[in-house]
Amino acid sequence: MTRGVTILGATGSVGRNALAVIESLPERFHVVGLTARANAALLLQFIERFRPRVVAVLDEKQARVVESRCPKGTRVLGGEEGVCSVAAVPEADVVVSAIVGAAGLHPVLAAIKQGKTIALANKEPLVMAGGIITALARKHGATLLPVDSEHSAIFQCLHGNAGQKIHRIILTASGGPFYSKDAEALEDVTPEQALDHPTWNMGAKISVDSATLMNKGLEVIEAHWLFGVEIEKIEVVVHPASVIHSMVEFIDGSIIAQMSRSDMRLPIQYALTYPERVESRVKRLNLTEVSPLEFFPPSFEKFPCLRLAFEAARSGGTMPTVLNAANEVAVEEFLQRRLRFSDIPGVIEHVMGEHASVTDPTLEEVMAADHRARESVRSGQRSCQ
Amino acid sequence: MTRGVTILGATGSVGRNALAVIESLPERFHVVGLTARANAALLLQFIERFRPRVVAVLDEKQARVVESRCPKGTRVLGGEEGVCSVAAVPEADVVVSAIVGAAGLHPVLAAIKQGKTIALANKEPLVMAGGIITALARKHGATLLPVDSEHSAIFQCLHGNAGQKIHRIILTASGGPFYSKDAEALEDVTPEQALDHPTWNMGAKISVDSATLMNKGLEVIEAHWLFGVEIEKIEVVVHPASVIHSMVEFIDGSIIAQMSRSDMRLPIQYALTYPERVESRVKRLNLTEVSPLEFFPPSFEKFPCLRLAFEAARSGGTMPTVLNAANEVAVEEFLQRRLRFSDIPGVIEHVMGEHASVTDPTLEEVMAADHRARESVRSGQRSCQ
Repeated sequence: MTRGVTILGATGSVGRNALAVIESLPERFHVVGLTARANAALLLQFIERFRPRVVAVLDEKQARVVESRCPKGTRVLGGEEGVCSVAAVPEADVVVSAIVGAAGLHPVLAAIKQGKTIALANKEPLVMAGGIITALARKHGATLLPVDSEHSAIFQCLHGNAGQKIHRIILTASGGPFYSKDAEALEDVTPEQALDHPTWNMGAKISVDSATLMNKGLEVIEAHWLFGVEIEKIEVVVHPASVIHSMVEFIDGSIIAQMSRSDMRLPIQYALTYPERVESRVKRLNLTEVSPLEFFPPSFEKFPCLRLAFEAARSGGTMPTVLNAANEVAVEEFLQRRLRFSDIPGVIEHVMGEHASVTDPTLEEVMAADHRARESVRSGQRSCQ
Repeated sequence: MTRGVTILGATGSVGRNALAVIESLPERFHVVGLTARANAALLLQFIERFRPRVVAVLDEKQARVVESRCPKGTRVLGGEEGVCSVAAVPEADVVVSAIVGAAGLHPVLAAIKQGKTIALANKEPLVMAGGIITALARKHGATLLPVDSEHSAIFQCLHGNAGQKIHRIILTASGGPFYSKDAEALEDVTPEQALDHPTWNMGAKISVDSATLMNKGLEVIEAHWLFGVEIEKIEVVVHPASVIHSMVEFIDGSIIAQMSRSDMRLPIQYALTYPERVESRVKRLNLTEVSPLEFFPPSFEKFPCLRLAFEAARSGGTMPTVLNAANEVAVEEFLQRRLRFSDIPGVIEHVMGEHASVTDPTLEEVMAADHRARESVRSGQRSCQ
């Protein structure tokens, strides 16, 4: 019997790669549910190809478009409630959470409440509500498996070492497209330049986050929650080639590293087939071709977003929620050309400075902090225009 | 209760490091038995410090020297029989096999027959009689744990992946002191130059083997037996910094690597404390300091010993026995300045060419092949002089 898979955010970069993996392993997986934010045309193609039992579109209007053209056998739902229903659909053994940003929080909570195995590509929910998510997962017996290449690497490095004292986690960062640029040159960065990542082909939001190094900051917080490791034990090292995806140093001084080509299908497949490994179509790594592998310390001065993420993580409570919310709006403003690239960190820092962090927040307190931070960025932006 | 450890070859480089590890972990280990080839003075120091129940010296004359000065409470044995008795001593939970060369075979067999856990630093027995050793270990429930940094790395990379299909093992090689030299320059290499290894501080025999790359060839055969992986799936890559100690590539394309400072105490400690990891005094690796990490394909032309080892491994049977025996004598002749560095591979190849390999050899056939190969090198040498 093949395992049923639901993909939240099926039309995005990770979602499409997840479908490619599932298609390459028909003897193991079948698609049960799919969701999309608004891309009705692509979702309809996937419905034809994978024949899921149920789909949902966040945008209600696009949901109706899908419904009107949908073949029989697939139910179409709309809105956040619809997306959460698909996340909880009983026939799914694994839920791939590939929604971008905070929008993934409620769907992931819905999947957790059903005790699902969740292949988590969506880091923002853990950043904004890591304590709530991990506690709920324990309560309902849900399993969170990392899909981010870095966290998949850490997960693979930890195998057979559960319960071993970790000295530190070393998250590698490509450094994004601007790592070797001068700080002044960053002021005039356009959305087009920010979206042109040197080693990974990704969606818009994560590409900008990679360019500011906020993505690495969010990953630090994600690693903290996924692996239960203190922030002080998580380090970032810039490794432009993105060959080593991350490392774990154990207390005896031994470092275990995971490497491969930069291809998202690999960590996605591993999360789906875990604990097994199966053949993949990914091209193999040739070390003599990628040699030499370079490592640099990250520049917190040139990339203040990384510093802000560490600060938010150390503050804890709702501060990471605010960091994430302010960043999401700031990135959107930058993509809309209403904010300069170099002003992103300043906007986030300002909102964080205004926020009085709530320790051990409830979900309502998290949502309130998220909401206020978004409003704060937007009103600040309006008053500037 | 602390675990009892016996160290075979205690006065050599690995033996001394093993004693340093044991001394650093007095709450975990105590020394039960020690053996040495001939270094009575150092063995007596160790007897004073660690108070083992029993020791043995291979050289009978030196055994008597030790006996005459030995404090009460320690029994002193002599000869190969004595060394084998110490290897089999009942009070030892772990036997560290750190004897150099084929001389380690019978002691390791003695330990295996007692079902011991063996921390194996001595690769030659596996090269000369891998089939016999692994079958005997299965029969007696003995466990072979690698101590060689490369094999410890592979062992660590395999954790949690037992039973997973391995695509290949990638053994890293520092390349030794002559990797960047011209082939002609290798002709005039002196023993002093060969003993000056760039990244590891080791005994004479293994240092010369590292300079010829025979050591890497022996490690390929060792990895084949230790991990049950076909020779075709074992690759060598030159990595001058010796930061990554080896890697395992799984069938999905993911590569797991292990890295650390080049300090033998680390793999020794891991073999002793396995499956636990404990704090060590080894200095930690700083990736930005060792950056960049380079990888090159090995040159089989410039280092024919590596080619010969692969050929012997593919032939199987007693051919690796002959490779190892011829190499041991050739290295000894080189260290005695009776053979040029660049003539080592030719001597080995000649003896291999004369040998009719015996498939699935008995121990007697292995010892006969070993003996004939040694005689062949020696008589060839005599006829040249």
